[in-house]
Amino acid sequence: MQSRQRIGEWIESDRIQRVIIALILINAIVLGLETSPAVMAQWGSWLVPLDRLILAVFVVEIGLKLYARGPAFFRSGWNVFDFLVVAIALIPASGPLAVLRVLRVLRVLRLMSTVPQLRFVVEALLRAIPGIAWIAVLMLILFYVFSVVATGLFGARFPEWFGSVWASMYTLFQIMTLESWSMGIVRPVMAEFPYAWLFFVPFILVATFTMLNLFIGIIVNTMQALHEAGQERELAELERVVQRDT
Amino acid sequence: MQSRQRIGEWIESDRIQRVIIALILINAIVLGLETSPAVMAQWGSWLVPLDRLILAVFVVEIGLKLYARGPAFFRSGWNVFDFLVVAIALIPASGPLAVLRVLRVLRVLRLMSTVPQLRFVVEALLRAIPGIAWIAVLMLILFYVFSVVATGLFGARFPEWFGSVWASMYTLFQIMTLESWSMGIVRPVMAEFPYAWLFFVPFILVATFTMLNLFIGIIVNTMQALHEAGQERELAELERVVQRDT
Amino acid sequence: MQSRQRIGEWIESDRIQRVIIALILINAIVLGLETSPAVMAQWGSWLVPLDRLILAVFVVEIGLKLYARGPAFFRSGWNVFDFLVVAIALIPASGPLAVLRVLRVLRVLRLMSTVPQLRFVVEALLRAIPGIAWIAVLMLILFYVFSVVATGLFGARFPEWFGSVWASMYTLFQIMTLESWSMGIVRPVMAEFPYAWLFFVPFILVATFTMLNLFIGIIVNTMQALHEAGQERELAELERVVQRDT
Amino acid sequence: MQSRQRIGEWIESDRIQRVIIALILINAIVLGLETSPAVMAQWGSWLVPLDRLILAVFVVEIGLKLYARGPAFFRSGWNVFDFLVVAIALIPASGPLAVLRVLRVLRVLRLMSTVPQLRFVVEALLRAIPGIAWIAVLMLILFYVFSVVATGLFGARFPEWFGSVWASMYTLFQIMTLESWSMGIVRPVMAEFPYAWLFFVPFILVATFTMLNLFIGIIVNTMQALHEAGQERELAELERVVQRDT
Repeated sequence: MQSRQRIGEWIESDRIQRVIIALILINAIVLGLETSPAVMAQWGSWLVPLDRLILAVFVVEIGLKLYARGPAFFRSGWNVFDFLVVAIALIPASGPLAVLRVLRVLRVLRLMSTVPQLRFVVEALLRAIPGIAWIAVLMLILFYVFSVVATGLFGARFPEWFGSVWASMYTLFQIMTLESWSMGIVRPVMAEFPYAWLFFVPFILVATFTMLNLFIGIIVNTMQALHEAGQERELAELERVVQRDT
Repeated sequence: MQSRQRIGEWIESDRIQRVIIALILINAIVLGLETSPAVMAQWGSWLVPLDRLILAVFVVEIGLKLYARGPAFFRSGWNVFDFLVVAIALIPASGPLAVLRVLRVLRVLRLMSTVPQLRFVVEALLRAIPGIAWIAVLMLILFYVFSVVATGLFGARFPEWFGSVWASMYTLFQIMTLESWSMGIVRPVMAEFPYAWLFFVPFILVATFTMLNLFIGIIVNTMQALHEAGQERELAELERVVQRDT
Repeated sequence: MQSRQRIGEWIESDRIQRVIIALILINAIVLGLETSPAVMAQWGSWLVPLDRLILAVFVVEIGLKLYARGPAFFRSGWNVFDFLVVAIALIPASGPLAVLRVLRVLRVLRLMSTVPQLRFVVEALLRAIPGIAWIAVLMLILFYVFSVVATGLFGARFPEWFGSVWASMYTLFQIMTLESWSMGIVRPVMAEFPYAWLFFVPFILVATFTMLNLFIGIIVNTMQALHEAGQERELAELERVVQRDT
Repeated sequence: MQSRQRIGEWIESDRIQRVIIALILINAIVLGLETSPAVMAQWGSWLVPLDRLILAVFVVEIGLKLYARGPAFFRSGWNVFDFLVVAIALIPASGPLAVLRVLRVLRVLRLMSTVPQLRFVVEALLRAIPGIAWIAVLMLILFYVFSVVATGLFGARFPEWFGSVWASMYTLFQIMTLESWSMGIVRPVMAEFPYAWLFFVPFILVATFTMLNLFIGIIVNTMQALHEAGQERELAELERVVQRDT
């Protein structure tokens, strides 16, 4: 038990974590270099073993953490994340799974869990999500309804854009980002259906208005949290002022 | 009278509402599947009756609510909304009204009125509208004025984009969303009218500045409402602090 | 003197102002209809006199106000605005000034000065400008510097986009709005100058970051103003609480 | 020592600084005019010496400041900035360094350091950066990871867009700005790899969500700073109210 604890403390010590961060950065560069056929032809015999070596260090690191903590290891979301991005690299990526080879680079994302400041930023980003989850659900419903309508109205004439509910959802997502919505999509559609703007202009207004509110929701939540924290400090301060004077 | 009330309570009970939500979700999937000719060819004889059955349940549900509440039913905006999206599906959609068939999917929007969290989100969105109504009116006036000017200046040479006030309004809406405004519209126009940028660049600046303020209006309104709610809590708190100390 | 005052009060009475608003709206429709050759062919003999008649009413209205107020009339920005948009319509718009005919529609903007709510909204928009004036000046300097550099670097090879400082400023404005910046402009330029992204990507980052801060400036100014107003109310409230308890 | 101080005070006096500002503005116009071959052919013999003369004044100005302050001169970031933009103009810009000639216009940026209001605005912009530095680092990591994946997946088939990690980073930057992302890049890629949207749509969502939070970070930081400043004023005010009443 005691040896477990000592190993746990050692592996999570600042010194070792700095080594791990350095290895992740080296690995990031190696994985970048491996995308270049020219570099691989000349240095591949060095890069591939280096990549394997770093991976081995990561496996040992996570193995030790797992040994030190036992099942409690998986209680932290960050540990699960580390475990998964390293595990992906161990899957034999051949045959139909060859596409997984490309996911080895996800290991670089371990920076997010290892550098405390990035960890903090990512956690702040994730905390913003629950506050906007229901607007996102609303958005999804609107997308689905508009997609089914678009498929029914324009699917037969413009199968590439509105041929199925999925195609319509992708096209409406493109329209929501305002990319080529008019020149690329709506003007050609209006050449066939002159009243198509009655469908698309309201969609753009509703979608951007909802997106805007999703955005405002995040601002207001963040300000609210800060305000409440500030309020408490302010009240304590006030109490001090009032007590001093009476 | 008492039976009315009992029916009203039963139909609005959590259990029945959960069944309704499940039926809306199933209906959403069915309506999505019905857009695919391949699926319809194989499963159409199952999907169409299922769709009709769910519609029948909705008609009964709304009928019971209407019976339970009497004319008061229509006092709630959400009830009117439910009534309309179900009523649309009952219109015989043949001949010139065939396009209405496609609106059956609006029934899926009943999720917004049935799931309490979505209801809350939609109500919050709608509450933001009055605060920005006059900026929207201002926007409309600007659009109209710029459209009439654009039609007068460029209508003869570019009838597709500025041939009528409506065409100009649509084109200016596209320009306001910044979609292909320069490469698609203004550069070609400038090839004919070299000073056209004196019209379009100010339009973009004015339109985006006004949109921005519309957006800021929503943020500020929301923050204001939250701040006032917070202020009251704070004052109550203060009163407590002051009273305790004197 | 007394008759002057009576006329002033009468012309600015709610009843007369409502008539003026109605006339502006009718005039807006008339001016819109006049852009259509088909409508003009059939109804032109009615529309043109109607337009002239409304213009005459406006001239009389402003004349009376001018008589009632004397030179003080021009002290209000809104009065100057009304005066100018009506005066434009009186310029004989023939020969080289024919383009001024199209500006008659500016009269519709009188809605902004006549409807109190719109007036309030426009004044709020204008109030936001001083707070951001210096960021706008900074923006202009950055645009000028980047334009001179772009003209020097790319002007010889891409005269249409960067042939002169003006052309560069327009193109950089387009790039700042992110319209076709990459596919339309930067990728073609990079085909000739492979390091062109070293110029354009920093420009986009700097320009959007500055725009963002301009935008944030407006939000913060607005919130600040509201906060100060709220603070005073809060302090008064506090004083009440403290006084009551001591 | 005393003469040094006197020179330092004289060169930083309002009168001299106004002359410098005027010279920068004249220089800006001259540098703009020099980009036009037509203007240079006619007025070049006047403009080039004028440019040199103004440059000489700047060199003398900075030389005097440097003499007056000694090494302490370089302790101010603005002085270093002034020194660099003037120094660039003194590098003999011939042969491979000819591109540096175009950077002479950076001298116009001295307005930012000389006009106090612009100085204030730029300092405010720069102050916003530390608060968002870690989100920017996170953004960079995400860009790098997505770029390596994109190069691995699409590099072989679309070398122009995803042929190397750099090409992929540029293309992903374009996609993040939403410029032609669908019609220009993703639809062509999807013609080859039908599931490419599984890569690009999440990228857009993650990238815009992170950008949004970077933006919100700036708003919240600014509001926070203002709020704290306001809080202190408020507390002082409160103390006054409480003291007066007890």
